[in-house]
Amino acid sequence: MKSICQIRDAMGGQEGDDHAAEDEQHISGDAEEEEAAADDERHDSNVSTESLLAVSDDVEGDETQSGTQSSHRLLAYSDALLSIIATVMILPVAHTKMEADEALDENLQLLLGTKMAVYLMTFLIVTVAWAAHIRLFQVIVRIDDTLALLNLACMMLITLLPYTFSLMATFPSHVLGILLFCGCVMVIGLIQSVIVVYAFSRPFLLQHQIRACADRSVYRHHILKVLLRVPVMCLLAAVCSAFCYQLSYVLLALVIFLPYISRGVLWCRDKLLGPAEEDPEQVMFYTFLPSEPLSKERVEAFSDGVYAIVATLLILDICEDNVPAPSSVQQRFNGSLVAALRSYGPEYLAYLGSFATVGLLWFAHHSLFLQVSRATRAMGLLNTMSLAFVGGLPLAFRLTHELPPAAAPRDERRAVQAACVLVFGAGAFQLATWVAALQRGRRALRPAVRYGGPEHIFMLAKLSLYPAVALAAFLLTCALSRFSVAIFHLMEVAAPLAFLLLRLTVTVARALLTRLFRPRGRQESENGEDNVQSSAPF
Amino acid sequence: MKSICQIRDAMGGQEGDDHAAEDEQHISGDAEEEEAAADDERHDSNVSTESLLAVSDDVEGDETQSGTQSSHRLLAYSDALLSIIATVMILPVAHTKMEADEALDENLQLLLGTKMAVYLMTFLIVTVAWAAHIRLFQVIVRIDDTLALLNLACMMLITLLPYTFSLMATFPSHVLGILLFCGCVMVIGLIQSVIVVYAFSRPFLLQHQIRACADRSVYRHHILKVLLRVPVMCLLAAVCSAFCYQLSYVLLALVIFLPYISRGVLWCRDKLLGPAEEDPEQVMFYTFLPSEPLSKERVEAFSDGVYAIVATLLILDICEDNVPAPSSVQQRFNGSLVAALRSYGPEYLAYLGSFATVGLLWFAHHSLFLQVSRATRAMGLLNTMSLAFVGGLPLAFRLTHELPPAAAPRDERRAVQAACVLVFGAGAFQLATWVAALQRGRRALRPAVRYGGPEHIFMLAKLSLYPAVALAAFLLTCALSRFSVAIFHLMEVAAPLAFLLLRLTVTVARALLTRLFRPRGRQESENGEDNVQSSAPF
Repeated sequence: MKSICQIRDAMGGQEGDDHAAEDEQHISGDAEEEEAAADDERHDSNVSTESLLAVSDDVEGDETQSGTQSSHRLLAYSDALLSIIATVMILPVAHTKMEADEALDENLQLLLGTKMAVYLMTFLIVTVAWAAHIRLFQVIVRIDDTLALLNLACMMLITLLPYTFSLMATFPSHVLGILLFCGCVMVIGLIQSVIVVYAFSRPFLLQHQIRACADRSVYRHHILKVLLRVPVMCLLAAVCSAFCYQLSYVLLALVIFLPYISRGVLWCRDKLLGPAEEDPEQVMFYTFLPSEPLSKERVEAFSDGVYAIVATLLILDICEDNVPAPSSVQQRFNGSLVAALRSYGPEYLAYLGSFATVGLLWFAHHSLFLQVSRATRAMGLLNTMSLAFVGGLPLAFRLTHELPPAAAPRDERRAVQAACVLVFGAGAFQLATWVAALQRGRRALRPAVRYGGPEHIFMLAKLSLYPAVALAAFLLTCALSRFSVAIFHLMEVAAPLAFLLLRLTVTVARALLTRLFRPRGRQESENGEDNVQSSAPF
Repeated sequence: MKSICQIRDAMGGQEGDDHAAEDEQHISGDAEEEEAAADDERHDSNVSTESLLAVSDDVEGDETQSGTQSSHRLLAYSDALLSIIATVMILPVAHTKMEADEALDENLQLLLGTKMAVYLMTFLIVTVAWAAHIRLFQVIVRIDDTLALLNLACMMLITLLPYTFSLMATFPSHVLGILLFCGCVMVIGLIQSVIVVYAFSRPFLLQHQIRACADRSVYRHHILKVLLRVPVMCLLAAVCSAFCYQLSYVLLALVIFLPYISRGVLWCRDKLLGPAEEDPEQVMFYTFLPSEPLSKERVEAFSDGVYAIVATLLILDICEDNVPAPSSVQQRFNGSLVAALRSYGPEYLAYLGSFATVGLLWFAHHSLFLQVSRATRAMGLLNTMSLAFVGGLPLAFRLTHELPPAAAPRDERRAVQAACVLVFGAGAFQLATWVAALQRGRRALRPAVRYGGPEHIFMLAKLSLYPAVALAAFLLTCALSRFSVAIFHLMEVAAPLAFLLLRLTVTVARALLTRLFRPRGRQESENGEDNVQSSAPF
């Protein structure tokens, strides 16, 4: 216990020093800002950016422990696998057969609804597994061959989760589905525990704070306790399924929401009984606090994977299905390839529309995370929500463009509105991620986009463009329900153009402002800066 | 011209200095090795690792040019998109319908053969586009919003290449296919030219050597000349298609092999007329020499993308197709879910087999590239060949496991042999990549795995395990053709076990050797080192 407290004191002391340094620099103005940013970065490298650490360890490690390796690429590969798996359950939804005679009727809607729910739950489950993986590899910063192979085994089991979950969802009252799912989760938990035990037996693989600590077994104990909670709950759920399967589902739901529940209970206790003394068990890792640091690099890698697979999901279908066979061109279109391709027109449009939308959403995400200096768990959660909406886009675009000719205007409108809701959700949660970052102020964002920063308004415009356009399209389709598809096409074309227009406007406006009001503009932004700083001192 | 020569002299001088420094250090032994490695790394950071450059530029850039950004994430996203697109044409091959009554007959084989050829050609075309993209962004190391949007547009068109190519392949004599493909390539070339012109008008976006140069227009001219060669050839091909489509194909083939042809012509000229004086046009970038540096980071990112999408291709299918509908379970299996799932058994096996194989091939690739300090064009080419084989694995595994019960033993054997050939190819080209790196010696590899290094034999064993196992399985199926499928299953299980056994053996053997023959072993390895150094001086 004592050693943890010492480390925490040491860290607290260090943070305190940082703050003192920051406080001394309260002169206001650009120079101070730059200093603060540099300070943030120094702080970062102390606490969370294990990637830099891995790089600096690399040289050192080559000499001391030739068998160990930087974990960077292993994590990138894991992120790629997990992002593909997270989005894969959109395929059964997207490929639901739609015949001309049952265009979007009640049954089909029910089926689509169920599949959508399965997709969202799978996405949630995989991202929970992903968050656990991040947490694990923020403690273990170097790997060796054994860890790499154990991690691959773990990945293989995680890729089975969507399938076992959808089995469970299709046969909710069947024991087999529950058993398979619980079995998967239990084996994953056990492999992760083996990874932890293995890594703690070789301290040079660990994060430098833990490595420097004399009594590492406390950390190991804490991490194992958090990790093993999940398999134990699943074992209980599996046992329960034998006599009351509803109870199993309650237990499984508890697994996902356990950290939030325990947080909530703690918060209530604090409010009722006054803040309790700090729990010595509650070390810096595995706190499940919303402010727990999250590797920004991995959030980016996972998001890139989701955006990339979503952008190309439709071209996968097009490549497979839309190359007409020579014989059918001969028979159905009198040998005219142009006519044959024209019949696929809507699918090309759907592809271009979805690629452009996903591409521009990626672009907004990219712009945002360029300015994020440190990600937290809350930001990660909001980002995941945004990604869940992004994952649904190919389906929405397909529905909008491929409605059978006999479809009623009501169905058309519904499909278009669904697409608008998805685009709106994706954009709005990006905006929320930014707001969450703004709340953390200088600890999470670079100075340019903080309140009063020179790029603040521009970033706001970039991030709110898609939600605004989607909302406008949604409202328009309500008012002019007959032209809903036309409005949607307009939106697809208008959004990229609006992006370009926005850039142009900002460039011109900034050039004008700089030329005309230079001193005044500068003063204003400085005042804004001061207000924020005085209202939110750390 | 003069400025280029000056820069080349400067660079040559620098290299010369490095060599002199290396020569001075010829004392032999471990210390020298470490020095050389450090030297390599210094050299690296001078010449090719633009990622480090981008990081160091980042801090500087934030202050000087607030609109520019590190290109790291844009490139990672592009790599993810390109790797998905490169492997996508395996889907039409994998999903070719196989009925029980036409098990692998002649027609089907022809169809599969054609689709395989289309897959390989698409893979080749996308990787050529990818190589051009690397080359472009080795010159442009920072981006701004305009470049990011231009790059997204470029990506969108590249994703259309597989589709237009397969149209062209399905309707070889039809003008439309050729026109669409040529149109795509032309627009891509034009966008890339716009990117180059734009970047050269903002020198702070460029690579630091070019940025430091007084007369940048020579570089721009050279790069544009190389870039525009492709659209011009395509325009010619499109025009030719109007009267003689065969000529169009010759022209298009020329586009891909042009660099090799011009290299070959130059080489022949040099051999015939003696080495010509150095062409001043031939700058360090866009040389198409086999030793041209290639961003190691991007080779890794692209490979990760291919391995990840290939590992999960089968689970995509399983998630979509293999969740039985409740009604069909009721009707066909008397409500027994276990029986229903048992009927999917082969597909699960195929998934596990392919995931394990792809995972271990990734692991070998990862081990290899951890030891590579610098990638060259030749290594990139060999790596791409290995990836092309990897891309075919899901198909092979599917064929092996899902043969209809009525299939003749001959067909079984053929499917298993095809799978063996693919595994062998993937492993053998990995080995070849290593050999290519070994040839470049200390310029490409870290000391541990060079000739005589402590990990040299272990790396050889790791990389040759899969080719050896695949070869053995292939030969066994020839001898014992009746048990081919059983042999294949054995191979799937044996390979991971062999991996673990290999690790164990090496660990034990090394521990024994260290204890027993420490002085002798050390001496031997040093001698080996010396021999290599004297036989291959730079």
